[in-house]
Amino acid sequence: MIDLRSSPLLTDLYQLTMLQAYLEANMQEQAVFEFFVRRLPPRRGFLLAAGLEQALGFIENLRFGEEELDWVRDCGRFSRELADYLAQLRFTGDVHAMPEGTAFFADEPILRVTAPMPQAQLLESRLINILHFETLIASKAARCVLAAPGKLLVDFGMRRAHGAEAGLFAARASYLAGFAGSSNVLAAPLYGIPVFGTVAHSFIQAHETEEAAFESFSKAHPGNVTLLIDTYDTEAGAHKVVRLAPRLKELGVTLRAVRLDSGDLAEHARTVREILDAGGLKDVQIFSSGNLDEYTMRDLLARGAPIDGFGVGTHMDVSADAPYLDCAYKLEEYAGRARRKRSEGKATWPGRKQVYRRYDTVGVMAGDVLTIEGDKQEGEALIQPAMRAGRRLAAPEPLEAIRARATAELARLPAHLRDLSEAPPYPVTIAPALRELAQAVDRDTMQN
Amino acid sequence: MIDLRSSPLLTDLYQLTMLQAYLEANMQEQAVFEFFVRRLPPRRGFLLAAGLEQALGFIENLRFGEEELDWVRDCGRFSRELADYLAQLRFTGDVHAMPEGTAFFADEPILRVTAPMPQAQLLESRLINILHFETLIASKAARCVLAAPGKLLVDFGMRRAHGAEAGLFAARASYLAGFAGSSNVLAAPLYGIPVFGTVAHSFIQAHETEEAAFESFSKAHPGNVTLLIDTYDTEAGAHKVVRLAPRLKELGVTLRAVRLDSGDLAEHARTVREILDAGGLKDVQIFSSGNLDEYTMRDLLARGAPIDGFGVGTHMDVSADAPYLDCAYKLEEYAGRARRKRSEGKATWPGRKQVYRRYDTVGVMAGDVLTIEGDKQEGEALIQPAMRAGRRLAAPEPLEAIRARATAELARLPAHLRDLSEAPPYPVTIAPALRELAQAVDRDTMQN
Repeated sequence: MIDLRSSPLLTDLYQLTMLQAYLEANMQEQAVFEFFVRRLPPRRGFLLAAGLEQALGFIENLRFGEEELDWVRDCGRFSRELADYLAQLRFTGDVHAMPEGTAFFADEPILRVTAPMPQAQLLESRLINILHFETLIASKAARCVLAAPGKLLVDFGMRRAHGAEAGLFAARASYLAGFAGSSNVLAAPLYGIPVFGTVAHSFIQAHETEEAAFESFSKAHPGNVTLLIDTYDTEAGAHKVVRLAPRLKELGVTLRAVRLDSGDLAEHARTVREILDAGGLKDVQIFSSGNLDEYTMRDLLARGAPIDGFGVGTHMDVSADAPYLDCAYKLEEYAGRARRKRSEGKATWPGRKQVYRRYDTVGVMAGDVLTIEGDKQEGEALIQPAMRAGRRLAAPEPLEAIRARATAELARLPAHLRDLSEAPPYPVTIAPALRELAQAVDRDTMQN
Repeated sequence: MIDLRSSPLLTDLYQLTMLQAYLEANMQEQAVFEFFVRRLPPRRGFLLAAGLEQALGFIENLRFGEEELDWVRDCGRFSRELADYLAQLRFTGDVHAMPEGTAFFADEPILRVTAPMPQAQLLESRLINILHFETLIASKAARCVLAAPGKLLVDFGMRRAHGAEAGLFAARASYLAGFAGSSNVLAAPLYGIPVFGTVAHSFIQAHETEEAAFESFSKAHPGNVTLLIDTYDTEAGAHKVVRLAPRLKELGVTLRAVRLDSGDLAEHARTVREILDAGGLKDVQIFSSGNLDEYTMRDLLARGAPIDGFGVGTHMDVSADAPYLDCAYKLEEYAGRARRKRSEGKATWPGRKQVYRRYDTVGVMAGDVLTIEGDKQEGEALIQPAMRAGRRLAAPEPLEAIRARATAELARLPAHLRDLSEAPPYPVTIAPALRELAQAVDRDTMQN
């Protein structure tokens, strides 16, 4: 059985095509590829690196199973030599990376692969697929965290995430960025992420009356109840909760919150708060959902909406205002010589690179230097070894540690980047050593 | 081992929470849910139904494995009764649906589930996850097909699709909408989709000269060669192809195309066409890629760019201009009584519905009627039985048949919907019988 998520056939055909050509030409010298984002999307002042754990898992488990080899042998496109090479293929190279949860900027590599060319090339498609999406969502989730400081944020997006893995990766990426958890159950056994849930409109509708639904649901989960009150009329729903409260108390139910999912959430939250407070339910919180993102949450809070928590769904899980990153996995060096793509509008910095980050006296990020490896600069070197000769250098980093790093990073961002609007870019300087290398590579390839 | 794609834990926590409440209240009567899109996204005049095959596969294989049951038992949230119920759970209900590849519009259900409440409810999250994404991409791909009639279109998007399954589903959805194939290798063994591939910039860069790269690649795949010519300078690359052509001929290489991936593609295509023609390579086609979508392809072709085929990637695989649909899976009936959600801005039509479609004398779609099942109208009834008592009524429909249907549907669209701009909506009439049912349901629930 081919497993979709780990199959090496989850790649672009040209990877296999190129592999065959590399083998025929015996081009198996060491190649260096780096993954980076060319330009940040509009309104993104920073990105949060994510996906390294899944990327390393993919790399260390890379192998062709019998069914996959059969396809390669029988598809009529490839040589026996390629199939034999793939049958014994394991990743034997090195990986360097920024730790997950690190803030980064345009042109800064977050992952580097150093390996014999066919191996390094073959990783490309799926490696981008993993790093791109988790980074995209962690970055979007970080904006939500900045927009709603101190609020309980829960990922509600699995249903409109793009497929199964997107739903799961989005739960992970948003949690590491600072969310409290996800509604996606599978995130609990797979990643140990706290899961949250309330009740759907269909449940309310299936009962003869809204009160009957509230009571039936509360009895089934007495320890921790959130009631959805907007199925018919939000304020009427809030009054019903007040009337029902003594009965729920008798039953030993802990009523934690009500959920609003439609209409003008700020208005409804205010009136519902008044109704609950007047009814002696000051401790019952207001949780809201429904087409939320960092902009709507910021606006709701700016309008003084008394909302204690938010379920953020579709807009985060598809990163609706910027559903992709302009990212690439580019050849930077082959057989000891630096390389560079010069295609119009797509030129890249050559060579193995390092990013140094400086902080001001109160610990706020003050500027990065992008340079070649070995050109030591002031500040913290962000790219660290993660895998050597095909083996991880450390056990998988606990998600809680990544989450703590992301929280620290958000606190260290310059104030204008913590804001959500278009802002002057964070200063990333290209070191002279890197500029010189780029010029040397260009001179070298001019005759091409 | 939990399989992410088929695990019933790939769901929202509230589904399990509600199930427990339904079991405790013994609410296991028959429920009817329908999946539909509330509003089409901006600039979408129609959608193409897709994902039914994967949805049916999910439904018929629904079961909790031991690991999943262990999680339910040990998480501290659920009763022994729920775990016992889940252990024996199989889907025993009916499914009705529009065939894949059918064009549809706002408020028209494309899938209906009729089953005991807990079963029907439990399907919700993953069913939406599947139908939403495949429909989203099939609809985007259909626009690409309409924008570039007669051109070879290939899905190049896997690397920036949102995870593994998104890359695979996008290959399937774009193929059924009329694409020629995908670069995603796994789409071949899994779906029988033709796969396409050329060569990456890294391959060119790894060689000492561009000519050496061209020759090395051609020798490895002599039967069908597409050369990427924009790594350093597009026109210089085209001249090199011309100079190399006699040598390739000697080697028995069939040079099929050159690929352009950067810069002003219309300008480059024109000059490259001239260079190739002047060099006696009139049969060598021009294939282009690089941030393409239906708008850029339409513009390139309107400018007369001599481009024979397009690789469409990120913008299609994430449906960049509309990365989600406002869709829902809503309770329409429970225990024989129609139901309706009235939440502000989210009210839905109650009951089991059918869509009838009329055509004009030349076969163009002339208007739909949305009504309740059994209220026979003029035209073709679009919603058909697909599963009865948990079993499919027919073998999976071949992808080629779905693709043929989609092609026919695009040909039958009114002219203004085949255009890509904002247009007057297609007429969908609500039948009096459905309006009356909605009013009756509202009267009925007013006292709530």
